[in-house]
Amino acid sequence: MQLEKFIRDVPDFPQKGIMFKDITTLLKDKNAFKYAVDLMIEKYKNQKIDKIVGIESRGFIFGGAVAYHLGCGFVPARKPSKLPAETIKENYSLEYGTNTLEMHVDGIQPGENTVIIDDLLATGGTALAVAKLVERLKGNVIGIDFLIELEFLHGREKLKDYNVNAYLKF
Amino acid sequence: MQLEKFIRDVPDFPQKGIMFKDITTLLKDKNAFKYAVDLMIEKYKNQKIDKIVGIESRGFIFGGAVAYHLGCGFVPARKPSKLPAETIKENYSLEYGTNTLEMHVDGIQPGENTVIIDDLLATGGTALAVAKLVERLKGNVIGIDFLIELEFLHGREKLKDYNVNAYLKF
Repeated sequence: MQLEKFIRDVPDFPQKGIMFKDITTLLKDKNAFKYAVDLMIEKYKNQKIDKIVGIESRGFIFGGAVAYHLGCGFVPARKPSKLPAETIKENYSLEYGTNTLEMHVDGIQPGENTVIIDDLLATGGTALAVAKLVERLKGNVIGIDFLIELEFLHGREKLKDYNVNAYLKF
Repeated sequence: MQLEKFIRDVPDFPQKGIMFKDITTLLKDKNAFKYAVDLMIEKYKNQKIDKIVGIESRGFIFGGAVAYHLGCGFVPARKPSKLPAETIKENYSLEYGTNTLEMHVDGIQPGENTVIIDDLLATGGTALAVAKLVERLKGNVIGIDFLIELEFLHGREKLKDYNVNAYLKF
């Protein structure tokens, strides 16, 4: 299946000059959505994966589906002040300023095998922050999976210590 | 399975005096997460469902899993300014002030059967806003499913025109 046909280009979103890759046109197509999730499942179905870590918010959609099908637990990595219990935090750089992601300290047990899932690999800062959170909890990052990779932003270099998979490249 | 054992009570979150029902302790348990998703799937597996509408953000986790397993498309209902293409909006009341949810105008086709999914039924305002969005797009709301219902907030009364399911009641 040519997944790229299901991605909609939206110009000037979220700001002027940016061509946004809209995945909602893929999500709403039952065949394309299933195909995309199956690509992620296929990579891990023969490995012992304990937890899927989904990155807020679009990573939750794929992460929930993959966790259910692989029979793993699901752990959210969330924006600040969304998680109610004790958390650890990592900051990461944006073009202007910084942002923060959090995980619950009891989200991962030491030694657990995890796969981190998000919709889009851009500069890689977000996923790297989540990988650090998992490792601070003494989990193993078995893979980091994205639906889309924006290759011109070279996010893969920032994640060079990890097994990175992306299924659509622009 | 006694799902309530997997819910963590967090006092004074997000503000003093509120006892927050934390579902992350259920999500991270592979058996409890699978069991919860299976309850939702069971309700709809013999019906023709075209789209699962997941409400941002925790509704995405369950919604993604249910859509994948039922072989439906997934459509997000999101907070303002998150969806890149043309949207319709509904406002709903909070204790203080109002909030807004949006869906893409092309998320649902006329006549499609939809199930709306979120983690928690509180006052019902959010889910009612999403049901109105689906109906403005001429979709059919076959059901509205929640993991948890806070019965003392009487949200089910606000949703009395709909088939509402909740799997854990407090």
